[in-house]
Amino acid sequence: MMRLVDLNCDMGESFGAYSIGNDNGIMQYISSANIACGFHAGDALVMRETVLLAIKNKVSIGAHPSFPDLQGFGRREINMSQQEVYDITMYQVGSLYGFVKAANGKLIHVKPHGALYNMAARNKKMAEAIVKAVSDFDNNLILFGLAGSELINVAKSYGLKCCNEVFGDRTYQPDGSLTPRSQANALINDWNQSVQQVIGMVEEKSVRAVDGTIIPIEAETICIHGDGPNALNLAKAIHTALKERDILIKSP
Amino acid sequence: MMRLVDLNCDMGESFGAYSIGNDNGIMQYISSANIACGFHAGDALVMRETVLLAIKNKVSIGAHPSFPDLQGFGRREINMSQQEVYDITMYQVGSLYGFVKAANGKLIHVKPHGALYNMAARNKKMAEAIVKAVSDFDNNLILFGLAGSELINVAKSYGLKCCNEVFGDRTYQPDGSLTPRSQANALINDWNQSVQQVIGMVEEKSVRAVDGTIIPIEAETICIHGDGPNALNLAKAIHTALKERDILIKSP
Amino acid sequence: MMRLVDLNCDMGESFGAYSIGNDNGIMQYISSANIACGFHAGDALVMRETVLLAIKNKVSIGAHPSFPDLQGFGRREINMSQQEVYDITMYQVGSLYGFVKAANGKLIHVKPHGALYNMAARNKKMAEAIVKAVSDFDNNLILFGLAGSELINVAKSYGLKCCNEVFGDRTYQPDGSLTPRSQANALINDWNQSVQQVIGMVEEKSVRAVDGTIIPIEAETICIHGDGPNALNLAKAIHTALKERDILIKSP
Amino acid sequence: MMRLVDLNCDMGESFGAYSIGNDNGIMQYISSANIACGFHAGDALVMRETVLLAIKNKVSIGAHPSFPDLQGFGRREINMSQQEVYDITMYQVGSLYGFVKAANGKLIHVKPHGALYNMAARNKKMAEAIVKAVSDFDNNLILFGLAGSELINVAKSYGLKCCNEVFGDRTYQPDGSLTPRSQANALINDWNQSVQQVIGMVEEKSVRAVDGTIIPIEAETICIHGDGPNALNLAKAIHTALKERDILIKSP
Repeated sequence: MMRLVDLNCDMGESFGAYSIGNDNGIMQYISSANIACGFHAGDALVMRETVLLAIKNKVSIGAHPSFPDLQGFGRREINMSQQEVYDITMYQVGSLYGFVKAANGKLIHVKPHGALYNMAARNKKMAEAIVKAVSDFDNNLILFGLAGSELINVAKSYGLKCCNEVFGDRTYQPDGSLTPRSQANALINDWNQSVQQVIGMVEEKSVRAVDGTIIPIEAETICIHGDGPNALNLAKAIHTALKERDILIKSP
Repeated sequence: MMRLVDLNCDMGESFGAYSIGNDNGIMQYISSANIACGFHAGDALVMRETVLLAIKNKVSIGAHPSFPDLQGFGRREINMSQQEVYDITMYQVGSLYGFVKAANGKLIHVKPHGALYNMAARNKKMAEAIVKAVSDFDNNLILFGLAGSELINVAKSYGLKCCNEVFGDRTYQPDGSLTPRSQANALINDWNQSVQQVIGMVEEKSVRAVDGTIIPIEAETICIHGDGPNALNLAKAIHTALKERDILIKSP
Repeated sequence: MMRLVDLNCDMGESFGAYSIGNDNGIMQYISSANIACGFHAGDALVMRETVLLAIKNKVSIGAHPSFPDLQGFGRREINMSQQEVYDITMYQVGSLYGFVKAANGKLIHVKPHGALYNMAARNKKMAEAIVKAVSDFDNNLILFGLAGSELINVAKSYGLKCCNEVFGDRTYQPDGSLTPRSQANALINDWNQSVQQVIGMVEEKSVRAVDGTIIPIEAETICIHGDGPNALNLAKAIHTALKERDILIKSP
Repeated sequence: MMRLVDLNCDMGESFGAYSIGNDNGIMQYISSANIACGFHAGDALVMRETVLLAIKNKVSIGAHPSFPDLQGFGRREINMSQQEVYDITMYQVGSLYGFVKAANGKLIHVKPHGALYNMAARNKKMAEAIVKAVSDFDNNLILFGLAGSELINVAKSYGLKCCNEVFGDRTYQPDGSLTPRSQANALINDWNQSVQQVIGMVEEKSVRAVDGTIIPIEAETICIHGDGPNALNLAKAIHTALKERDILIKSP
C-alpha cells in the first residue's frame, strides 16, 4: 500500500511593509498551506497573494485563524469565552474563503494558530468552539490539530474530518504533548535529527519522548515552520527524505 | 402593475461594550440590512447576532464594507490604491459570508459604507475596485450605490446587478449628488418632509433639488439611517406611508 | 480629626462614534478621574476632552491603563510577560500625560483597568510590572489598587505611594477579595445598601463579607462605576451621604 | 566658523515579531533618531528598546508621530480634521515621552512621518495642528520638516524652533519640493550621487533640481533612510564624507 503524508506550513504571515517567511521558496515543497487571516499576521493583500501562490503551486489551502493579537503574533493566550472563540474563528475562515472563492480555489482545511492552537489542544471548550465554527461553515473542511489532542478528540466526536499533526523540530513529552518552548530541550535544531524524527513518526507511527520512552503517534500531517533562517533547507530536506522512501507527499 | 421598493438600513454597528442603533426595533420595518463587517463597526459577535436577527425578521442580508477606521466610523477617506480597496472589500464580504453561510442564510447584496461609498460614487477607480471584488466573489450579488453614481455606472458596465439608492433625510444638488454634510441644508430633519421626499422619489421618479429644480431619480432602495434618536419613528413612518400607497416593501 | 476619602470614577471611555458613561454629570460628584488611554476605551480626542473636563471640575487626573483590547473593553486577561505589561503601562501613562501637560494640568495617580487591575491584585509579577512603570515615570504618582491586594503590597515595598480602593456596589469574600462577577451575589444593586457599605467601610474600616463575617478594610478611595443606567444617581447618593457625615471628599 | 549639520534617521520601526531596519548599526552614524510611536510602526517594547539604544549611542531622541495606519506604514493620507491631527500628535509625543522620561533621557525633537509629513509640508491646517500640539506639549521641542515647507513656515510663525530637513536619496523639483515617489526619477540610487548632493546642500546651500536649475536650500538636518538594503552603507558614506570635510555631525 502507498504510504502518504501531508506537509503543511504557515504561510502569508507578512503584513503591510513587514515581511516574514519565504513563501515563494517553501511553497514548492509542501502540500498544504495554512494562510494567516489578519488577526496574528497577514493583511488582505497578503492573503490574496498567498492564495494565488498556493493555487499556482497546486498546494491545498487552509485558513489559519488566531486570537486578535498582531503585536504578539497570536502567541499570547487571551481569556475569551467559548462564543467569542467561535465567532473569531468564523470571521477569519470566512475572510480567507472570500479570496479562495474569488480565485476559483477550494478551501480544504483549517488550522488554529499559536496560542489558540495550544489552548484548543488541551481545553475542551475552546476545542468545541473551533470545531463548531468550522463545522457550521462547511462540514467538509478538515481540521488540523496536535496529534492525539483534545481538538482531535472533539472533532471526531462531532463527526468533523481531522488530521493529526506532528512536528519534526519539537521534542515530545511522554504523554504525547510538545515540550513547552520555555524548556531548554523544546526545539530540535539539528536537521538530521528533525528529518529522522519525521521519518520515524511516519514509518513507525511512534516517536521517542524526551525521557527515552517510545510513544505511539499518528502522523497525518507534518508541520514545517516557515519563519526560521533555515526553514527552506529543512523543508527541502524533509521533502527529499520522504520522496526517497517513496512516501507520497499529499494533502488530505 | 405592483409598485415596489426596497427599504435598507445599516445594521450591526455596535462594537464590544459599545452600542449603536436600535437594530431590534428597526429590523421589523426594513427589507434589507447592510451589516457592518468589523472595519468601521461591528465585531464578530455583533455580526453573528445581526445575521441571525435579519434571518429571523426575513430581512435580506448585505455586507457593508468600509475603510479600516473604527475610530472614524469609516467616515474619513483613506488614500488607498485600487488593489487595496479590492482586497479590503473582498476580506469583509468574505467575513460576513461566513456567518451567513453558517446560519443557512443567503448573502444578497453589498453596500459600501461611509467614505468608501462616497469615493466610489464619484471615483471610477474606487468604483471598479468594489465592483470587481463583489463580482469576483459572487456575480449574483447586488451592489447598492448612490442613484445615478459612478458606482452604479461601473456596476452596469461590468454586468453586475445593482440597485439605485435614495435618501429621505438628505437634500439633493441639481446634479443628483447629495448635499455635503458640511453644508447647513444637508439634512432634512422634518419627518413629514422626509416621508414626502421618499414618496415623491418612488412615485414620480424625481426629487426637488436645493435650488428648486426637479431632477429625475431612480429609487430602487431607500436608505433609512438607524443611529439617530428618531430613527425608529422615521423608519416606521416611511414604512407606513409606503404601505398606505400600496407600494410593496421588498428586497431586490 | 477631619475624616476624608477620595471618590474615583472611570472616565473618558467613549471612543469615536461610540459613547459610554455620563462624564459631564458624574464629574461634579467625584474627586478623582481615571481616564482611559486608548487601549480598552478612549481615543485621543476623548482623552483631551476628558482631561479638560476634569480640570474644569477641579477633579484629580489619573491614567487608567489597560490590556490592548478595545473589543473586550479590557476585561479579558491577556497572557503578557512582565516586561510587556511594564511597557504598555508606560506607553499609556505617557500618552495621557501628553494631554495633561498640554492643558497645564497635573497627573496625580494611575489605576489599572479591568483584567489588568484584577491580575495585578493577585499576581506579584504583574503588580511589579505596573509599580515599576509608574515609579520609573514619576515616583510622586499615586497607584490605586484593590484594598489590601498584592498591588498595594508591592507598591509599598517599592516605596510608591498608593491608595486602597473599595467598592460600594460589589460584595466581598471573607479574604477581602471581591466576589467574582460570575457569581450571582457579586453585585449590590440596591443603592441604599451600596451607600451603607461605603459609609461602613469609611467610618468603621470594615465590611461585612458574603458569609457574614466582619472583615477589616482600608477605604482610602471609593470606586464609582460610571457606565450603569443609575451611575449618576448612585454617585450623587454616595456624595451626599458622605457630606452629611462631614466626611470630606478629597483626592489623595 | 565650524560648520555643522544633523544626521537623522527613522528608528524603532519594528513591530512585534516583525523586524525592519538596522537600528543597531545605523545608530552609530547619526545624531538624531526619530522614534516611531506605535501608529505606523513600533510597539511599546520596541519604543523602550530604541530609546535606550539612542541614549547609549548619545543620539538625540525625537518622536515620529504618524497617521494610525500600521498596515499602510503611515504612507496613506487619511482625511482627518485639524483637531484630530492635533490629538493624535499629542498622544504619540506623550507616549514616547513616557519611555524617554523613565530612562532619564531628554526628548529633543518631533518629526512627522510619511503621509502626515507630506500633508503638513503643503497644507497649512495640518501644519498648524502639528505645530500647536508640539508647542503645547513643550515649546522647547524642535520640529523637523521639509526644508522651506509650510510646516517650517508655520513653526516659525508660532515661534517654535524648527529644523530644515533635506534628502540625499531623493531628487528635487524646481520649487524645492521632493519629486513624488510615483515618478521614475524620484529616487537617487547611486551612493556617490547621494553623498555629492548632501555635501552640496550643506556646503553650497543649494541643490540641482531635476530640470537642471540650481535652487537654494537650507540643510539643517539630513534624512537617512534606514530600511533599504544599503541603508547602513549609505549612512556610513555620508557620515564619512561629512567628517572628511570637517563638518560636525551634531543634533540641533
